[in-house]
Amino acid sequence: MSDSKKFLLNENDIPTAWYNIIPDMRVKPRPMINPVTHEPLTEEDLHPLFTREASKQEMNTTDTWIEIPEQVRDLYKIWRPTPLVRARGLEKALDTPAHIYFKNESVSPVGSHKLNSAIPQAYYAKMEGVTNLTTETGAGQWGAALSMATKMMGLNLAVYMVKVSYHQKPYRRSIMQTYGAEVVASPSMSTKAGRKIITDHPNHQGSLGTAISEAVELAMSTPNCKYALGSVLNHVSLHQTIIGLEAEKQMEMAGEYPDTVIGCFGGGSNFSGIVFPFMRHNLTGDSHIRFIAAEPSSCPKLTRGVMQYDFGDEAGYTPMIPMLTLGHDFTPANIHAGGLRYHGAGSIVSQLKADGMMDAVDIPQLETFEAATLFARAEGLIPAPESAHAIAAAIREAKKAKEAGEKRVILFNLSGHGLIDMTAYDRYLSGDLTNYELTDEEVKASTDSLEKII
Amino acid sequence: MSDSKKFLLNENDIPTAWYNIIPDMRVKPRPMINPVTHEPLTEEDLHPLFTREASKQEMNTTDTWIEIPEQVRDLYKIWRPTPLVRARGLEKALDTPAHIYFKNESVSPVGSHKLNSAIPQAYYAKMEGVTNLTTETGAGQWGAALSMATKMMGLNLAVYMVKVSYHQKPYRRSIMQTYGAEVVASPSMSTKAGRKIITDHPNHQGSLGTAISEAVELAMSTPNCKYALGSVLNHVSLHQTIIGLEAEKQMEMAGEYPDTVIGCFGGGSNFSGIVFPFMRHNLTGDSHIRFIAAEPSSCPKLTRGVMQYDFGDEAGYTPMIPMLTLGHDFTPANIHAGGLRYHGAGSIVSQLKADGMMDAVDIPQLETFEAATLFARAEGLIPAPESAHAIAAAIREAKKAKEAGEKRVILFNLSGHGLIDMTAYDRYLSGDLTNYELTDEEVKASTDSLEKII
Repeated sequence: MSDSKKFLLNENDIPTAWYNIIPDMRVKPRPMINPVTHEPLTEEDLHPLFTREASKQEMNTTDTWIEIPEQVRDLYKIWRPTPLVRARGLEKALDTPAHIYFKNESVSPVGSHKLNSAIPQAYYAKMEGVTNLTTETGAGQWGAALSMATKMMGLNLAVYMVKVSYHQKPYRRSIMQTYGAEVVASPSMSTKAGRKIITDHPNHQGSLGTAISEAVELAMSTPNCKYALGSVLNHVSLHQTIIGLEAEKQMEMAGEYPDTVIGCFGGGSNFSGIVFPFMRHNLTGDSHIRFIAAEPSSCPKLTRGVMQYDFGDEAGYTPMIPMLTLGHDFTPANIHAGGLRYHGAGSIVSQLKADGMMDAVDIPQLETFEAATLFARAEGLIPAPESAHAIAAAIREAKKAKEAGEKRVILFNLSGHGLIDMTAYDRYLSGDLTNYELTDEEVKASTDSLEKII
Repeated sequence: MSDSKKFLLNENDIPTAWYNIIPDMRVKPRPMINPVTHEPLTEEDLHPLFTREASKQEMNTTDTWIEIPEQVRDLYKIWRPTPLVRARGLEKALDTPAHIYFKNESVSPVGSHKLNSAIPQAYYAKMEGVTNLTTETGAGQWGAALSMATKMMGLNLAVYMVKVSYHQKPYRRSIMQTYGAEVVASPSMSTKAGRKIITDHPNHQGSLGTAISEAVELAMSTPNCKYALGSVLNHVSLHQTIIGLEAEKQMEMAGEYPDTVIGCFGGGSNFSGIVFPFMRHNLTGDSHIRFIAAEPSSCPKLTRGVMQYDFGDEAGYTPMIPMLTLGHDFTPANIHAGGLRYHGAGSIVSQLKADGMMDAVDIPQLETFEAATLFARAEGLIPAPESAHAIAAAIREAKKAKEAGEKRVILFNLSGHGLIDMTAYDRYLSGDLTNYELTDEEVKASTDSLEKII
């Protein structure tokens, strides 16, 4: 019988400021650059695309704490603070001496951590008089979150959804539409970028790269419209740090401190969110926690990508970002963790990885679903396929602890639930899923075409 | 911008006893009877079918409070206490002077209130050495809940799922399978009852009645196997009273008291859960709250059924229950609120309705989805189609309050979220749903064949 234990904070314990890791980094991330001039971008350069406040936060390298607006905190209270859970059921199933904790971000109304950034981004748009937002979404978690957040603020939203997910995950599309958003499968014929991609590759199934191109183009060509991104960028990571800040207080309640902190990795939003608040103590030398990003074997930018300036999107509309990347025209296999199918990592994480401040592992698809099913049966929660990568990495660590006979304290982020991903589970249980491994030649082919700036 | 307010209890505030309404009822419900002898059933008569503790609770007409076992309370803590929310977003959207509150039972790991009874039923089975359970499920909410609860207890489970839902709601089937349960579409060829139904009606799409017949037959013919039911019966209503007991404490925190309490109605589990703890004050004359059961127009047992002894299942395997019923072979239209497609109401609610202690309204399918979409956009939560009946009834009351210029306090139960029901929303948003109204002749035809015992 499960005797997993939940550690709960009060609404008053919701942090009043987000944590900006950049001032604490010994080596700062390289700046974004203009793709033509290679000049570093200024805050003003971002204004045509993003809200002024998001642009300001994106460029803020000096303020360690950024205040969370009171109205954002009020909306956070719809579901925050989220629980921290000691996963005794999973520990028992693994017969491990390790203590395993997870932060349960799946309890939000849209089922994932993505609301943590959707709400402030929609709030800043509202405050600045913006009436329309555009965005992209992979698996649909970000799109669902921004659909809810914009509706709460009375804004309009157009979502470009990666085509394979649009068809594979019709429930997420319907969720966005139920909240009143317009949803378009990307690549589409509604933008120049989309038309070019479809012309060049008629059967292109889309990627976050294609969807970002289309959303950016629409925002740039529509009056009073801005673009909102759900991962990769500094200000998104900033908003997500509420996860780790809460988790740290809750680990204190549990009377333990993690030696390992794990997040799954797509563009970096939930990983940064759980990891950065703990990493600040490593950066000051007060702790020696190990941080592990868990990415899919089919999209291994952290473990096999190159450090280079690259575009954030397929068409090359965005500024160039210094990133660990597989190349902006890399198209990953159609794995069911659609939210992890992104070619690059944000500039902060890329720098931290290059500096040896964190590790990364890549997990094959079958191992993630094996972990997900074990977790569901042991803890009662069906995880999102994305989050299952973090579970799989935690299980690997817990097994090592058992082999070594070590008491360990492992914390991972459960970024979302899988109740809207049951098609993937159905296929797994039917023995219908496979692994996708990239050859070195494939990685080389997709990265060789990158301009050598670094 | 939404400023809905949440009222939260601590884990220590989880009630330590369920509320049994029968001792407080002026007119007790008639007893269940043996269909052949018409003799009242004894507790022992239930032992072949149910666990001993469930049988005992079913027949308990004297103890007002039944202690909740500590291990059940520990498992409740996975998601309880659940929030009470003042739905200011909905109030604003309706421009009503009424205050609208909802109890949010959708936050459970399986997305509905059904775990409240699944956990104690699985717990009692475990304590009594039972190794296998069988059950039926309509929309899949009960089946998902019992799948999780049995897995937590290390028991096996076979679920007969209404055929139309099995095909219409594949995600719910996959959820049960992910938790390790065996799921069979009913009517099936695996039981005598199923074979007879299929022989008589080759295209029968199933009903809770057919699924109960099959689950009961399997339990009766399998060693060390008991049957568990998710609604209708007294002990299920008992377990669900934790909803209203928590809600009453939370209304006190809000500094208000409801004049109207609303639940959607299938077999009565969530309705009893939110209503009975408040109704006890009406029964003692200390309050004059109005109670409203919201049922679908296509399955209107409370508003148009007859009070008669009837079988709980299609094949006539169960004891006869005194119920407001449309007849046990009534097959409702394939509405998307699968959990409300049951032909009768439990004996307690039927008696309370007959005695004028509560009201009922029937809601057409399109009005429920209109209410659901309005609620989703105003409050950020996408409700289950079942729960949307309660929302629609609350909206009717809030509109009346506006017309009358009355400050009212309306409380309803949000029994579950709709994230696993997005096909239904997709069809609604596509203009592809219709209403189903029963003619008087249809109601008469399905009730006329009942044996006249009362």
